[in-house]
Amino acid sequence: MTDTRIADIRVTPIAFSDPPLRNNAGCHQPYALRSIIEVETEGGIVGLGETHAGKELLDGMTDLAPRLIGMDVTDLNGLWAHARRALWPMPDPRVQLRVVAGIEVAMWDAYGKATDRRVCDLLGGQMRKTAPFSAYLFYKFAKHAGSDTADMWGEVATPEQLVNEAHTLVDQHGFRSFKVKAGVLPPDEEIAGLEALREAFPNAPLRLDPNGGWHLHTTLDLLPRLDGLVQYLEDPTHGIPAMATVQAATEIPLATSMCITSDADLPEGISRKAAQVILSDHHYWGGLQATRELARICAIWGVGLSMHSNSHLGISLAAMAHLAVSLPHLSYDCDTHYPWQTDEVIEGGKLRFDKGALTLPEGPGLGVTLDRDALKRLHQNYLDCGYTERDDASEMRKHRPDWQYAHPRF
Amino acid sequence: MTDTRIADIRVTPIAFSDPPLRNNAGCHQPYALRSIIEVETEGGIVGLGETHAGKELLDGMTDLAPRLIGMDVTDLNGLWAHARRALWPMPDPRVQLRVVAGIEVAMWDAYGKATDRRVCDLLGGQMRKTAPFSAYLFYKFAKHAGSDTADMWGEVATPEQLVNEAHTLVDQHGFRSFKVKAGVLPPDEEIAGLEALREAFPNAPLRLDPNGGWHLHTTLDLLPRLDGLVQYLEDPTHGIPAMATVQAATEIPLATSMCITSDADLPEGISRKAAQVILSDHHYWGGLQATRELARICAIWGVGLSMHSNSHLGISLAAMAHLAVSLPHLSYDCDTHYPWQTDEVIEGGKLRFDKGALTLPEGPGLGVTLDRDALKRLHQNYLDCGYTERDDASEMRKHRPDWQYAHPRF
Repeated sequence: MTDTRIADIRVTPIAFSDPPLRNNAGCHQPYALRSIIEVETEGGIVGLGETHAGKELLDGMTDLAPRLIGMDVTDLNGLWAHARRALWPMPDPRVQLRVVAGIEVAMWDAYGKATDRRVCDLLGGQMRKTAPFSAYLFYKFAKHAGSDTADMWGEVATPEQLVNEAHTLVDQHGFRSFKVKAGVLPPDEEIAGLEALREAFPNAPLRLDPNGGWHLHTTLDLLPRLDGLVQYLEDPTHGIPAMATVQAATEIPLATSMCITSDADLPEGISRKAAQVILSDHHYWGGLQATRELARICAIWGVGLSMHSNSHLGISLAAMAHLAVSLPHLSYDCDTHYPWQTDEVIEGGKLRFDKGALTLPEGPGLGVTLDRDALKRLHQNYLDCGYTERDDASEMRKHRPDWQYAHPRF
Repeated sequence: MTDTRIADIRVTPIAFSDPPLRNNAGCHQPYALRSIIEVETEGGIVGLGETHAGKELLDGMTDLAPRLIGMDVTDLNGLWAHARRALWPMPDPRVQLRVVAGIEVAMWDAYGKATDRRVCDLLGGQMRKTAPFSAYLFYKFAKHAGSDTADMWGEVATPEQLVNEAHTLVDQHGFRSFKVKAGVLPPDEEIAGLEALREAFPNAPLRLDPNGGWHLHTTLDLLPRLDGLVQYLEDPTHGIPAMATVQAATEIPLATSMCITSDADLPEGISRKAAQVILSDHHYWGGLQATRELARICAIWGVGLSMHSNSHLGISLAAMAHLAVSLPHLSYDCDTHYPWQTDEVIEGGKLRFDKGALTLPEGPGLGVTLDRDALKRLHQNYLDCGYTERDDASEMRKHRPDWQYAHPRF
């Protein structure tokens, strides 16, 4: 047996180019931040993980990683036990789960590479040939604040521009379903955007995600216009009580990646029927095993399962895909920001979608390997860009100086 | 990589000696039935499983096993998918889970043996050094009906005899907690037995399991006498509504291995607070992975976890122990009938408890190997004994011809 005890853990913060995508909280900065985790075993295998960034997360990594040296990469119980001792309580309890998730994925990858097995097989076996993804549509600015040139997407603020964006994503990746990041424009304009998408793509499932940006009464007023138009409505408003009130008032399935995001939310969220669909995210839930268990919970309680995304690169995409093909209970196409990213940190460049679905990269573990030159370059970006935290609100004020954060906004 | 695709699955029904233990449903027969499962890989590894027996279960095995040939032993999703196609619906839905469980354990064992890893490591890592078990006390007859000689335990029907039985089990195995199988004698007598145990073992946790044999009103009347006496009260009465009524009336934790025994029971059982402790049983829940997921559910919903047992031999004990040491959430000592069994089907004979706890048998997988001579002998027992189903009621009528099944009885 290869020695799969952990010899070293390296965490490298990176920054990669990101377009000026808009959301309820502001606008994406020119660079998105991410952490790349390498778990190296005594046997010389390197497992890869990718997760969020930010000072608190990196501090958590610095605290946790040395405690794991000598532990076997299969020892997920040990990872959690060390994480509880090292990280609990953190100022933001969400961060600790993201720390664990980044390392856990790297442990699965190392284990798979050491035993010549794919991560999806270690997660219980491949249930479907490919991982299905949805096109993630954003309203956006034509260019970053201070930039002279528009990006290839140009401005997206009208129904026509939204449909054009959708056509481009379909042409490039073959997506068959669409999610619109909403809560940006007045709801009337966003619903007009959805109606234009429905006309352009008559049979494609459509989803709207106002990111909790609507008041409860706004949401209730809008339900008749959304009924029959959306496959599900994601986080129209904020918090379990408000979501439960909306769900009780409509046949439209509500989905959430905001009000049920960790174990602590499940009992109340499920008993109050705050949503009919949970958008899992292995970065949020503490890794692949925890997400698989979430899927079992959803199956038992009759809750649908989809998958949430933040801006990410190929290691996370591969992890999401291995998880997606191995989940017995996956009710919907998954979300991904990946088509918006041009940088990459894995060898061979960007992974490619076919008909909106991802075939697993070949090989054991996650099937991806680190491009060390790219890692070096993206880490230099991180050092140069001056960001240590994501800050969509400040970025938004560079575009519109009088913009104020409001949640809910409409 | 060793070829871990399944080449052959062999299922051997066995019968092993069992004392005349009494319960709410009657009395144990001279032989208990069980199935031994061997999953042999293309690489020549043999993984072992053990589960219930009976015609329906063996028919299920005959139906399911051939469908799994060629599948990898890691492919638990494939096992479940084939099981659903092969077995659903069965006349008794509990049986299908027991079929899956027997094969699933053998797949874990084969995988562990093929990769030189222990099952507890494959389940996420060892959390505690040993698996803690409780002494399982029974009222019993001195001898089987038609037999001339009393067994070594003699009759157990009085508080004094119950305490003697407890002392013997403690002397032999070092148990530090006790469970009494109840619902056999009138409740007053069983509570007198508990009080005698409390006097003899002042600090030992005590549990009572009437097996749903008490009426709701009887249970409510008895609660004041049990409060402070028992660690938990297992299935005093039958069904989620009645259990919920009892739990609402008492601070004593209720435990169940009867009203929440599969996924379908969880939403109602948890929301109605039918019990504060679920007694898991990997044979009931469909295997080790399903039980680990049950443990996560219990942790999330604040429900305690213990472990149920039926008459079983060493393969099941090893599986229970690997599970028990790897569960982050195990609140109580586990149940086991194992000390009541004299036969064994694994090499080296009976596994031994120390201070009531089991150290994992050494070696990869479950750490146990099949004694083929014993298997042959116990299979011959099965052919000779004439039983194909467990039937405690008919056996009871051999002792007491006018005995009638009644549930609840008291």
